[in-house]
Amino acid sequence: VVSLDGAARATTIAVDAMGGDFAPDEVVKGAAQAAGRGAHVVLVGDSDVVRASLERVGADLPIAHAPDAVGMDEPVSSALRRSGSSLRVALDLVSSGAAGAAVSAGNSGAIMAVALHVLGLQPGIDRPAFGGLIPAGDDRVFVLDIGANPAVKASNLVQFAVMGEVYVRLCLGLDSPRVALLSNGSEDSKGTKSIREANEQLRKTDLNFVGNIEGNEVFDHKADVVVCDGFSGNVLLKTAEGTAMEILRLLKREISRDIVARVASTALMPSFQRVKRQIDFEEHGGAPVLGVDGVMINCHGRSRARAVTNAVMQAEQMARERLVERIGDALHHEEGEARTRRRIARAFHLRSSPT
Amino acid sequence: VVSLDGAARATTIAVDAMGGDFAPDEVVKGAAQAAGRGAHVVLVGDSDVVRASLERVGADLPIAHAPDAVGMDEPVSSALRRSGSSLRVALDLVSSGAAGAAVSAGNSGAIMAVALHVLGLQPGIDRPAFGGLIPAGDDRVFVLDIGANPAVKASNLVQFAVMGEVYVRLCLGLDSPRVALLSNGSEDSKGTKSIREANEQLRKTDLNFVGNIEGNEVFDHKADVVVCDGFSGNVLLKTAEGTAMEILRLLKREISRDIVARVASTALMPSFQRVKRQIDFEEHGGAPVLGVDGVMINCHGRSRARAVTNAVMQAEQMARERLVERIGDALHHEEGEARTRRRIARAFHLRSSPT
Repeated sequence: VVSLDGAARATTIAVDAMGGDFAPDEVVKGAAQAAGRGAHVVLVGDSDVVRASLERVGADLPIAHAPDAVGMDEPVSSALRRSGSSLRVALDLVSSGAAGAAVSAGNSGAIMAVALHVLGLQPGIDRPAFGGLIPAGDDRVFVLDIGANPAVKASNLVQFAVMGEVYVRLCLGLDSPRVALLSNGSEDSKGTKSIREANEQLRKTDLNFVGNIEGNEVFDHKADVVVCDGFSGNVLLKTAEGTAMEILRLLKREISRDIVARVASTALMPSFQRVKRQIDFEEHGGAPVLGVDGVMINCHGRSRARAVTNAVMQAEQMARERLVERIGDALHHEEGEARTRRRIARAFHLRSSPT
Repeated sequence: VVSLDGAARATTIAVDAMGGDFAPDEVVKGAAQAAGRGAHVVLVGDSDVVRASLERVGADLPIAHAPDAVGMDEPVSSALRRSGSSLRVALDLVSSGAAGAAVSAGNSGAIMAVALHVLGLQPGIDRPAFGGLIPAGDDRVFVLDIGANPAVKASNLVQFAVMGEVYVRLCLGLDSPRVALLSNGSEDSKGTKSIREANEQLRKTDLNFVGNIEGNEVFDHKADVVVCDGFSGNVLLKTAEGTAMEILRLLKREISRDIVARVASTALMPSFQRVKRQIDFEEHGGAPVLGVDGVMINCHGRSRARAVTNAVMQAEQMARERLVERIGDALHHEEGEARTRRRIARAFHLRSSPT
C-alpha cells in the first residue's frame, strides 16, 4: 500500500505494470526511467511479481497491489468483471484522487471500457474517443477518434474537435491549433451525412476550423487536429503504419540486391535510422482516452520501456495541466457562444419580422 | 467520324482526349503508345484540337469529334448536361457498341455520373464502385470502392466483393482471389453494422472470403481483393500515397544533411528509383468503374502518357475478357447458390419441425 503526500498526489501516475506484450519488465523499466526524469510513479500489479521485476530492472518504486490482471485478448465483458485487475485498481486510484492519471499498455478495448466504467464521462461529452499523435514532417498531428467508435453522429465529431483542440493546445503548446475533418474530398459537400453536418456545425464554433482534408493532406500537416470516426481513424493509422513498413522493407530488399548499393547503404544507415525514428509511432507517446472524467493514457501493446516512459511523461503533463477541466471550460465556452448566437438571431428575427 | 470494321469493333477503346490535367498531349501520346502495342484506339474530342495534338505528338489515330468537354472541377450536375462532351461521346460509343471500352483521365465525379447515365447499371448491381490496384510488395491488391459511395449497405459490399473478385481474376489472372473486408479489427465482430452484416453474408458465398483485415494488413497482402465503402477506401488510398511521399521526402532530407550520405546516396539511386516505381500508383493503371453496363477506366487526373497507355491496355483486356458478362455470370452463380441453400434450409426445417 502506498501513502502519498499531498503535494505529490495531484501528479502521481498510476502505471498498470501487468498490461502490454512486454509486461512487467519493459513497463517497469519505462516507469523507472520516467521516475528518473522527475515523475511520481506508482506501479499497479501483483506485488510479488512487480517486486521481482523491480529487482531485475534494478529500480525501486512504490507498488499498489492488484491481485488480478486483464489478458491482452480478453473480451471487454470479462475484463469489466475483474474488480481486482491492475487496470481497474490503477483507474480506482485516479477516481479516488490518489493518482492524477493512469497509464496502461494493455488491451485497448478493456482500457476504454474500464475507464468509462470507473471514471464515467465528463459532463458535456456523449462519447469518449481515443486520440493519437502521428508524425508529419517535423511536426505531429493529433487524430481522434482512432478506434473507440466505429460510427458517430455529427455532435460526437464536434465534441471530438473540442477535446482534440484542448489536448493539442496543452500537449504541443500550440496557441490556436487548426482543426480539420477527415473526409473523402476537401469540399464541404464531401463525406458522410455526419461529416457534412459536423462541418456545418464546426464552422459556427470559435475553433480554428479549416474544413475537410483527405488522408494524404494529414501528412502535409494541413491541420493540427484531425477529427474522424473511430473506423476511419483506425484505417488512417494502420494504413500509414503499413505503408511506412512496406517502403522500408522494399528499400532494404532493393539495396541488398545490389552490391554497390549494399556498401553505400552503410553510410546511409544513420539517415535511415533517423527517418525510422521520425516515423516511429511509439516515439510519439500513447493514445489518450478523451471524454472520460480523468486522465488515462493507453500505450501500444508492443510498447517497450521508451514508449512507456513517454506515455508516463505525457500523462503527468496532462494531469498537471488539468486536461479534463480545460475540456470542460472549452465546452462551456462553445455553449455560451452558441447561446449568444441564438440570442442575437432571435433579437434580429424579432426586429426584422413584418408585424 | 470513324468507321470501324466488325473484327476491330469489340476491342476498340474510346479515349477521352480532353480529360486530365495534361490533356490533350499526354493523353494522345499515351493512346498512341497503346496503339503501338496493338490496341485499337479512337480519340474523342474537338477534332481540330486533337488533330493539332496528334501532329505535335507525331502520331496518327482515328478521331471521333466531340464539340464540348467537361472541366476538371466542374460539378456533376453541369457535366451531366453536356451532351456533346468528349466524355459523353466516348461513353456513347461504348453504349452503341462502336467501342468496347472508354478511358478518361477527367473529373472522377463526372465520369461516374455520366457512365451511370449513359451505360446504366448492370442487372443485379445496386451501386457502382470505383476500384483501384495498389502495390503490396511484388504483388498488387485491388481495393473497391475507392470513392463512389461514402456510405453503403451490407448488400452493396457483397456486390463489390463479387465484382472485385471477377476483376482480379481477369486482370491479374488469379484463380481464386482472396477477398477481405476492410475493418478496424480482424475479428468478425469488428466494424460498422454494414460490415458485420456483409461479413456474415460473405461467409455464405462461394467466394474465397478470408474475413476482416486492417489497413496495415492490406500491405502484407493478406488478401487480393479488399472491399470497403468509398469513404474508407479513399482514406486508405490517400493515406498510403501521403505516407509514401512523406517517407521519401524525409529520406531525401536526411541524406542531403549528411555529406557522406549524400555521396553514398548516388550509388543508391537505382534502388530508390525502383522502389519509387514500385509504389507509384500511376504505374498500376486506372480505376475501373464497376457495376455499370460497359467497361470504363478512369485514370488519375495527373496521368502522364505512360499511365494512359497502361489504362488503355487494361481497358482493352477487360473488353476482350467481357468483364460485364463475367460479373453477371458470377452474380447468377451466387444467386443460384443462395437459392439452393434456402431450399435445403427449408427442407431441413420441414423435416425437423415438431409437427
